[in-house]
Amino acid sequence: MNDRRVSEAVIRRLPKYYRHLTELEQRGVERISSAELSREMSLNASQIRQDFNCFGGFGQQGYGYQVSHLLREIGRIIGLDQHYNMVIVGAGNIGKALMRYNGFDKDNFHVAAAFDRTPAIIGREISGVTVRDVTALDDYLHENDIQIGIICTQKEEAQSVCDRLVAGGLRAIWNFAPIDVVADVFVENIHLSDTLSVLSYRLRNQRDGE
Amino acid sequence: MNDRRVSEAVIRRLPKYYRHLTELEQRGVERISSAELSREMSLNASQIRQDFNCFGGFGQQGYGYQVSHLLREIGRIIGLDQHYNMVIVGAGNIGKALMRYNGFDKDNFHVAAAFDRTPAIIGREISGVTVRDVTALDDYLHENDIQIGIICTQKEEAQSVCDRLVAGGLRAIWNFAPIDVVADVFVENIHLSDTLSVLSYRLRNQRDGE
Repeated sequence: MNDRRVSEAVIRRLPKYYRHLTELEQRGVERISSAELSREMSLNASQIRQDFNCFGGFGQQGYGYQVSHLLREIGRIIGLDQHYNMVIVGAGNIGKALMRYNGFDKDNFHVAAAFDRTPAIIGREISGVTVRDVTALDDYLHENDIQIGIICTQKEEAQSVCDRLVAGGLRAIWNFAPIDVVADVFVENIHLSDTLSVLSYRLRNQRDGE
Repeated sequence: MNDRRVSEAVIRRLPKYYRHLTELEQRGVERISSAELSREMSLNASQIRQDFNCFGGFGQQGYGYQVSHLLREIGRIIGLDQHYNMVIVGAGNIGKALMRYNGFDKDNFHVAAAFDRTPAIIGREISGVTVRDVTALDDYLHENDIQIGIICTQKEEAQSVCDRLVAGGLRAIWNFAPIDVVADVFVENIHLSDTLSVLSYRLRNQRDGE
């Protein structure tokens, strides 16, 4: 596998391939051509072939891809054959929603612990996980094998929480606080409202232009 | 304004510019060069100038951009000088979190109503909005001026809810159900777990390669 050549755009399309292939497999589709896959995914077929070539191709052109094989291979490339332990810091609205979220595979991405600073929330059990006092975060990270930290605090605390997570040895940060956190590990800053702004742009533009 | 030439990538960077400029203005920065902005945003300076040229430029090269002017202009282009009424369908974990979310401007993006099918949730007030029975959705949409529909239902119901929202006259769909909904209006399908998969990819790749 030649990861170093894989562009950011390709990496970000991998989960999309994985989702669509999962659905195809559930629908009982066994083989699919890049042309058919391109219609399913609104991507062009040559783009798909080019993306797959980053990882050695997966299938013969003209004959199509075997869905279950492709799904398994892409899952492996994404790392979905791994098990990750995660902690959530901030058990407010978004934190609680993520603890209860069933949009990711719980076997794969396991919420091991959650932390908050609010006395009324500490000790509450949410989806089988008891919320701990955030003062216990650093010790917890040193005593447990955690890979991914999820930040759901207020904007003001996000960076210092991020620093503590990194100091605790975590190598990936999934940040939902509405500010970009900066760290020398892998960071995904999620700005939910950015996509709402994109809708706003389109509505406004349509109004102007049509 | 020449919207038709604006690429998808530029449209998706606009909210990012807006966030960073808001922060710069809050920090009291009055002028910024594209070089400085590029360091703040981890984009290259020529990219920034090129993006801004899609909208006429905003400032003189060499002299830099006036932050407050640029912020106001980009806000206007995104449509943040407009008021949008939104409905949320599905007042489960994500739906409730969005009703309580303070990451977007409530004056700009107003949650006018929320709907659910679960008797235990119907009638509950969340952030000042009473959850209604989803059977009342269609009438509500015909009687009220709503622009954006937010889908937070289970995967299985998402497409039929989307169809009802579109039939009710909505022109933008913000979908959080873990399936792509399809409609002949503006749609943003949000897959929270995609970015978690990106982190997984990076962790796995680092493990392999380094």
